[in-house]
Amino acid sequence: MSLLGRTLKEIYPQDSGFRDRAKERLDQLALPHWALGDLMDLAIDLAGMTRSMQPPVARKAVVTMAGDHGVVAEGVSKFPQEVTPQMVYNFVNGGAGINALARQAGAEVVVVDMGVAADLNDLVKQGKIINKKVGLGTDNIAKGPAMSHAMAMRAVESGIDVAMELADRIDVFGTGDMGIGNTTPSTAIAAVITGKPIAELTGRGTGLDDEQLVHKQEVIKEILACNTPDPKNGLDILAKIGGFEIGGIAGLIIGAAAQRKPVVVDGFISSAGALIALTIEPFVRDYIICAHRSMEPGHKAMQEKMGCRPLLDLNMRLGEGTGAALAMNLVEAAVAVLTEISTFEEAAVAGADK
Amino acid sequence: MSLLGRTLKEIYPQDSGFRDRAKERLDQLALPHWALGDLMDLAIDLAGMTRSMQPPVARKAVVTMAGDHGVVAEGVSKFPQEVTPQMVYNFVNGGAGINALARQAGAEVVVVDMGVAADLNDLVKQGKIINKKVGLGTDNIAKGPAMSHAMAMRAVESGIDVAMELADRIDVFGTGDMGIGNTTPSTAIAAVITGKPIAELTGRGTGLDDEQLVHKQEVIKEILACNTPDPKNGLDILAKIGGFEIGGIAGLIIGAAAQRKPVVVDGFISSAGALIALTIEPFVRDYIICAHRSMEPGHKAMQEKMGCRPLLDLNMRLGEGTGAALAMNLVEAAVAVLTEISTFEEAAVAGADK
Repeated sequence: MSLLGRTLKEIYPQDSGFRDRAKERLDQLALPHWALGDLMDLAIDLAGMTRSMQPPVARKAVVTMAGDHGVVAEGVSKFPQEVTPQMVYNFVNGGAGINALARQAGAEVVVVDMGVAADLNDLVKQGKIINKKVGLGTDNIAKGPAMSHAMAMRAVESGIDVAMELADRIDVFGTGDMGIGNTTPSTAIAAVITGKPIAELTGRGTGLDDEQLVHKQEVIKEILACNTPDPKNGLDILAKIGGFEIGGIAGLIIGAAAQRKPVVVDGFISSAGALIALTIEPFVRDYIICAHRSMEPGHKAMQEKMGCRPLLDLNMRLGEGTGAALAMNLVEAAVAVLTEISTFEEAAVAGADK
Repeated sequence: MSLLGRTLKEIYPQDSGFRDRAKERLDQLALPHWALGDLMDLAIDLAGMTRSMQPPVARKAVVTMAGDHGVVAEGVSKFPQEVTPQMVYNFVNGGAGINALARQAGAEVVVVDMGVAADLNDLVKQGKIINKKVGLGTDNIAKGPAMSHAMAMRAVESGIDVAMELADRIDVFGTGDMGIGNTTPSTAIAAVITGKPIAELTGRGTGLDDEQLVHKQEVIKEILACNTPDPKNGLDILAKIGGFEIGGIAGLIIGAAAQRKPVVVDGFISSAGALIALTIEPFVRDYIICAHRSMEPGHKAMQEKMGCRPLLDLNMRLGEGTGAALAMNLVEAAVAVLTEISTFEEAAVAGADK
């Protein structure tokens, strides 16, 4: 059996016994009933995921997956493709947005080359990035498929590998992405899986003007017309639309779920990876925490499809895992609510009148 | 001149020079323009408040002000008044919600007795709480004023005192409250200052049922009918409606603003304190960060009146400063964005096509 097949067999729903035990304790905390709202819902989820009343969350990593996209030939991004490897160097040097926000949250940044269209061997040799390169960027999806089905499988299994390699030292995963042009495949994936109209889902990415936005919508129409992916087949969608980093994110989520570890899903691109993962195996939903609501208009539909209310809504649209890093503070806070607050009885506080 | 008068003379608007310098740097960061959204807006505010391109935010304290309310005699709360001192002991013992969330955020919890209807001298003697007791709970505001104008002044100046006492060791203040019954005066304050209808502003506090909610609205009508505070006079509103902890919060905010330090305003009760402070001196607005949107329905109108979009919206309604503690992570993150992310030039990353 393939690594993917074996990993999927390890994915179970959240443990209802631990969910019940967590709820029972939270119901008794010395505060008005459920007065910490979403943090308490999250605490129940974390107990159910980790099968623990002390969910381990101290060791955190944001895994930033990088890949390039042949569709940039269609003029769908404001930035040149060389920015993808340049940003990988920026991550390694600690100067990017994800570095700043991961430091604040006490999370490690793990950078993975899933398919950057540049030679990053120097960084691999120095142990600064993980090499899972599937190719030098995807093919132009406005003209045909992004990659072969074998490559799609390899991208997802590479993400699973990364989750397994980090398993011994990481409690909570965050997803992140870097890839010039990657809002275009992500929007196409959203259109396929949510069934919503392209015009409603498409956004300005890194800063397109009105005319460029209309052009991007036309390109996405072409992508779907020439590829016709099967909306029920995650690997088919990935092979036809891409990209390598989106497949890696899907695999990381699957790998986290198989280890019963929470995975904080970042923004628009990460949600495309999550939708691919959910199409492959719906039970991964039980391990996903949606970090934030991106400014990309299609993100709402994606999160609705996942059935997930995001924790933060701060008008962000950077990717890299920045929203996931911020949300890790809230994951820690939810565990603190479950483990550090006294009950009415423990604190000798009088309860509410019945 | 009074301490309040002297302190108000120290309050200046945010520094526009530092705001401009911060914006200039943020505009050049190696990311799509303004892609970290609200964190970047907050970073500008922090630079303007602190007159620094490295706004100091490492040393954080949530100041939880406690006081009792004579209006509990009208049956406006689910919990008995003895819970106020019991929760003060819970804060001191580290078992309350605010302790858990402040620990997560790396913030100290400072507990102040502004007017609890119980003897807390043992905690004062042990140095566990700050004693600023103005009285043993306010008078019943459904029958007359909460306190004298002299006591209102003393409550506000006590809050200023606390801000000054903490000044040497604290960079960022958070506000918090504890006081059984205090959503009733807070709703009345909201009605006076926002001018919105009582029915729209009144919520279930710690968990009232439908009938109790209607009763609470009737009590708030009585409060306003028998007290008729001047909506333009913050001290008059405080004297007539209360409470001691709300006055303390107003003073803490004024004291923070006078020191050019950010003050993260928690939820519904803290916003009542903030509205009192703003009525006394509108320039304090420049130092206020709204932490979160409470589940109390009146909170939206209060934040609109302050002109402040909250950072978090997590269905919380606990008070104590819990929302402020959570938001302190975002304050730190905003500073990290300003100080730790490289510009395009520093990172040698290509910019967007013009």
